[in-house]
Amino acid sequence: MKNNTVLLAHGTGGDKSNELIRLIKKNFNNKILNRMDDAGVAEFSGVKTAFSTDSFVIDPIFFNGGDIGKLAVCGTVNDICMMGAKPLFMSVAMIIEEGFSQKDLLKISQSIAKTAKEAKISIITGDTKVVDKGKADKIFINTSAVGLIPEGVNISSVNASEGDDVIISGNIAEHAAAIMMQRNDFKFKTKIKSDCAHLDSLVQTMLKECKEIHVLRDPTRGGLAAALNEISKSSNKGIIINNDEIPVSKQVRAFCKILGLDPLYMANEGKLVSIQPSKYTAKILNAMRKHPSGKNAKVIGKIVNDKKNVWIKSKSGILRILANADVEQYPRIC
Amino acid sequence: MKNNTVLLAHGTGGDKSNELIRLIKKNFNNKILNRMDDAGVAEFSGVKTAFSTDSFVIDPIFFNGGDIGKLAVCGTVNDICMMGAKPLFMSVAMIIEEGFSQKDLLKISQSIAKTAKEAKISIITGDTKVVDKGKADKIFINTSAVGLIPEGVNISSVNASEGDDVIISGNIAEHAAAIMMQRNDFKFKTKIKSDCAHLDSLVQTMLKECKEIHVLRDPTRGGLAAALNEISKSSNKGIIINNDEIPVSKQVRAFCKILGLDPLYMANEGKLVSIQPSKYTAKILNAMRKHPSGKNAKVIGKIVNDKKNVWIKSKSGILRILANADVEQYPRIC
Repeated sequence: MKNNTVLLAHGTGGDKSNELIRLIKKNFNNKILNRMDDAGVAEFSGVKTAFSTDSFVIDPIFFNGGDIGKLAVCGTVNDICMMGAKPLFMSVAMIIEEGFSQKDLLKISQSIAKTAKEAKISIITGDTKVVDKGKADKIFINTSAVGLIPEGVNISSVNASEGDDVIISGNIAEHAAAIMMQRNDFKFKTKIKSDCAHLDSLVQTMLKECKEIHVLRDPTRGGLAAALNEISKSSNKGIIINNDEIPVSKQVRAFCKILGLDPLYMANEGKLVSIQPSKYTAKILNAMRKHPSGKNAKVIGKIVNDKKNVWIKSKSGILRILANADVEQYPRIC
Repeated sequence: MKNNTVLLAHGTGGDKSNELIRLIKKNFNNKILNRMDDAGVAEFSGVKTAFSTDSFVIDPIFFNGGDIGKLAVCGTVNDICMMGAKPLFMSVAMIIEEGFSQKDLLKISQSIAKTAKEAKISIITGDTKVVDKGKADKIFINTSAVGLIPEGVNISSVNASEGDDVIISGNIAEHAAAIMMQRNDFKFKTKIKSDCAHLDSLVQTMLKECKEIHVLRDPTRGGLAAALNEISKSSNKGIIINNDEIPVSKQVRAFCKILGLDPLYMANEGKLVSIQPSKYTAKILNAMRKHPSGKNAKVIGKIVNDKKNVWIKSKSGILRILANADVEQYPRIC
């Protein structure tokens, strides 16, 4: 590590990210953090809460389907929802570059307020810092949130068990595709829109149907591949995914084909992976499909015990390992 | 506001800061946020918690008396302590510039871990983002924290009442002086050290003595002047401060004299203002002075009803208004 520096690849959600996180995390060693869930679970005075934080550095700050403000609320709300928690309260902290437009700041603040209202979470504290021109890129937003975990709910990426089914809530890769589309000045035009959305209502709907969900995870940075690899590692189980079952819209598929991209590694901001005992799968899937955020939900795979890692099965039945991305694909996607 | 931009002065804790905060805050209008306390107070499931967030963008990241990691923990711990809360758990989110030294990152992480341990707060969730070289300045850290407010404790800047005494816990202006000293290559040398410290233990000591404290506030950005002005505004009371009573070390006084600075406007990172009914003052002061973080505590003023604003009284008895700073003094002090 002597003279090593931090690379862009350390920020993309794959193996390199894990390397950097390990360097930081080993100093804070504690049981809650070591679970590496989307949120930490803290029990005190007889209540069980989920707590999560995320900084958003997305470029561009306004994109098709949202903006950095909407994303900042959805991203953190989703993290606490992935523990089955009901959102309670949130903080918003902004680092603003000198010279940033007050008009844009107002627009972003309004977007934060609107999204928080929809997700039924109160913003009760905040912070603003201004740094000299050239020392930040327009605006960075951190949100942290606390949610209440209902009794009987025990969701964690360590809980995936043999025979569990894996559901994805809808078409993948839309957020990353929309951002890349906008960032690069492609000659062709598509209408790909980020899927940026808060998932609190979908999760509540699922939990109303069945409290026995083992794992929930939103496949953001690093895409579905990173999320599944994290779950596989945390629960020390194998995961087999059927390539043909993974829902990708026609537009995104075409976009990826042209650019040689793999949708499995592309970020989502309004999707979740649910892993539950197979006897509950039909019930949960049914509830999800009736919800606007889950209408394209599909069972895509299974948890196994006789293999480790994540495997993807082709139509012809051939299995190949779905490794984590270890190179930097698209920085500042969130 | 048409084409206005965000200025450095918007980040310094004075009137300009308030202007920017208003622009953002008006969108989130809610009772808790409108109190403008150091932390938001949230009650749920029979518990009362304090929740606060802060982003740290200090330059330089290593300074005499601390570093950005220690500061990030102390700053947010202190914010929840200013509501009388006992620290429970904390998040740490880092935005790192591509090319940042992993050695320094490790050093900062160790400093975070050490300070959190001392302040008895668990870090249970975190986030790391990496941005391209030149799009951030080395490292920015956000911390958010939740603390439990004990029964019978009701501290808020709206609570200052006529006749209350104002205590400051020790010598002021040391953090800002240390940072300025280091940032500028002055020909003279001093040993001024930042007062960066967590105040949880001091606050617990004070509350053990007396639960009836009305206001606690740590005078960070904008210094004692900004903290008192915020309290005066929130509680709609006047504050009269005795100039001669304000504790400033000889070194800091000399440093300020040479540079023409006013210590009242200079940031502290390990001091607090306590406002309480005068009948409890002696008891609280006594307890503070026995504590290492409060050994230079002094009564510096009083809350009045017949005046608004903050007033400073000279030796000869002349009163002048202690206004908020409205110009940018020293950006990125925290």
